Amino acid sequence: MSTTQAQPSSLPDAHSIGDDQELFRATEKAYDMVFKGTVDFFVIKAAYDLKLFDELAAGPRMLADLAEATATVPGRLEKLLITMQQIGLAQRAEEAWALTPFSIQFFTAPEQHRNLTMLPFVDYMVDLIKTMYVDLAEMTRGKINFTSMIPFPPKTRDDSIFYETIHRSNIYFLTKFLGENANLEGVKHLIDVGGGIGDISASLCERYPELKVTLLNLPSAQDLVRENMAAKGLGERITPVVVDMYREPYPKGDAVLFSRILYPMNRQFCSILLRQAYNALEPGGRIIIVDMNISDPNKPNYDYLTHYVCGIGLDFGVLEFKDHGIYPDVLREVGFTDVTFHEQYDHVLYQAVKA
Amino acid sequence: MSTTQAQPSSLPDAHSIGDDQELFRATEKAYDMVFKGTVDFFVIKAAYDLKLFDELAAGPRMLADLAEATATVPGRLEKLLITMQQIGLAQRAEEAWALTPFSIQFFTAPEQHRNLTMLPFVDYMVDLIKTMYVDLAEMTRGKINFTSMIPFPPKTRDDSIFYETIHRSNIYFLTKFLGENANLEGVKHLIDVGGGIGDISASLCERYPELKVTLLNLPSAQDLVRENMAAKGLGERITPVVVDMYREPYPKGDAVLFSRILYPMNRQFCSILLRQAYNALEPGGRIIIVDMNISDPNKPNYDYLTHYVCGIGLDFGVLEFKDHGIYPDVLREVGFTDVTFHEQYDHVLYQAVKA
Repeated sequence: MSTTQAQPSSLPDAHSIGDDQELFRATEKAYDMVFKGTVDFFVIKAAYDLKLFDELAAGPRMLADLAEATATVPGRLEKLLITMQQIGLAQRAEEAWALTPFSIQFFTAPEQHRNLTMLPFVDYMVDLIKTMYVDLAEMTRGKINFTSMIPFPPKTRDDSIFYETIHRSNIYFLTKFLGENANLEGVKHLIDVGGGIGDISASLCERYPELKVTLLNLPSAQDLVRENMAAKGLGERITPVVVDMYREPYPKGDAVLFSRILYPMNRQFCSILLRQAYNALEPGGRIIIVDMNISDPNKPNYDYLTHYVCGIGLDFGVLEFKDHGIYPDVLREVGFTDVTFHEQYDHVLYQAVKA
Repeated sequence: MSTTQAQPSSLPDAHSIGDDQELFRATEKAYDMVFKGTVDFFVIKAAYDLKLFDELAAGPRMLADLAEATATVPGRLEKLLITMQQIGLAQRAEEAWALTPFSIQFFTAPEQHRNLTMLPFVDYMVDLIKTMYVDLAEMTRGKINFTSMIPFPPKTRDDSIFYETIHRSNIYFLTKFLGENANLEGVKHLIDVGGGIGDISASLCERYPELKVTLLNLPSAQDLVRENMAAKGLGERITPVVVDMYREPYPKGDAVLFSRILYPMNRQFCSILLRQAYNALEPGGRIIIVDMNISDPNKPNYDYLTHYVCGIGLDFGVLEFKDHGIYPDVLREVGFTDVTFHEQYDHVLYQAVKA
């Protein structure tokens, strides 16, 4: 590639981006922002609406057969499949069409891919686009407010199923990262604050046979946790309880876990919750914070941004972009010591000990 | 990172994707497809709808001032700006907010960035989403057809302005690549087939002072080409003519250029057009094909895909995914020799000589 910095007269101020190599990288970014996401998402949505992922989950199908099953026009379906092939969602299997391993993993059989599936997010994003993203300008003007389709915080069992299904759908790498790096040696009783439906605690129990867990969640989620734990044979070891994590004292334990709870909170709220954890521990007790990383300047966290954008439609602020680098200071202020740090899979892990 | 291939029981068939490193890369791809594009595009759309790019084009503004100018709620606007900051579109300038060089280049002042701006595409994609992408499933079922908002092929001057504005908006790197690699030494008269509004030929004329160009375009674009060339002082050297590129003989010349014309056409159509070019040349005359690359298996061309997807809503096929690697064979079949190949900036260039 040429490295000349000369610009033709049609681009008088392109120099502000740098040389042509830098400008080309910027162009690729701009294309991705305007073209790629639109094609990717709406093609996934079309395949999802047509139940193409379901129809192809069992194996390759001929075009005519697949068109009949999805009530589509064969020539049109073929073009949709060619588009899916281009973007990595479908492939040819001799004369037939098949899914790729990629789309089998992320877009079929969510029950089998419980901790790593995009299907609940597709549904959710379709609704967010229709109700909110298309009118983001009007929302910024205050003409429309954000209202969640499902009440948040959840009130009923069904509300909780909705949110817990979403939250458990992308914890495969968090669970792996936490399991490999959390120091739970000698811990008999873990307090899992806001522990969702229990999948993360369950994986820790599999790794540490002596471990028992008290899991803090909302009233509407208690039965879901109990049922999930019973199905995993962990009903005796993982017990959900209702505790207001901001206001009520936590049960006593040897360790307290905040798993993807603190990342959107500002310093003050983190400090309040870490003090709550401190009060539940004896000296020598452990604190474990695992967050998705939302402050990497080179890699915006779009999972978080999909939620942050919703907050534009609210006049009170709940979500923040806090640098996780403040945790060591906050932990020490609260009274913890021996702070350690791990980072992997776009997640960060801080651990410390009550002095 | 761990390279273990073991999978927890919750992911029975994740092995089909490979080990955890490969699965993590696949997860990043899935996140991009579902989360990133949606946030990116609709945040750009909101900023565009609110004229934020225009308001910030002249320099940094304070939040209160900017909220007044855009009739937005300051607290909400701040969250939109924070989102824009996260994705590289805005930045803080001390107490004020400013655009980044990236958004200045791609989202402000299209007249100044005539050959490298995303603004016409934002407008276009907003319309495509509303009228088509959201109903892609119904389109595949044949319940809805694709109809272009602006007639295609264009009939009036305004129709042609619409398409020529789009087509000239991303030719900066094509022009650079072509200028640096096309062999026009000794060529006095170039035939530019489907040469758009003339920006590409104009850049070649700047590089080759002896060159004159006959540019083939539709009737509704003739005046636009003449006006554009006159404004660049090239009215004497670049002359538009109306020729049906499939059916009518081309004017005679020393070289024929197909610039981003052949890429969506199948082998048969390419062969027809290359024969037309062959017939316009004397022995020793040159053929030049420059295409965007739509057949790189590692990099789907989303610019092309945005158009290809529209074709799902049509029962006749016009767009294809042809491998550009067939050009040497097709060129030789038609009677060309000395085929050369260049590749850069996601474009490919084939040149050959009439035997």
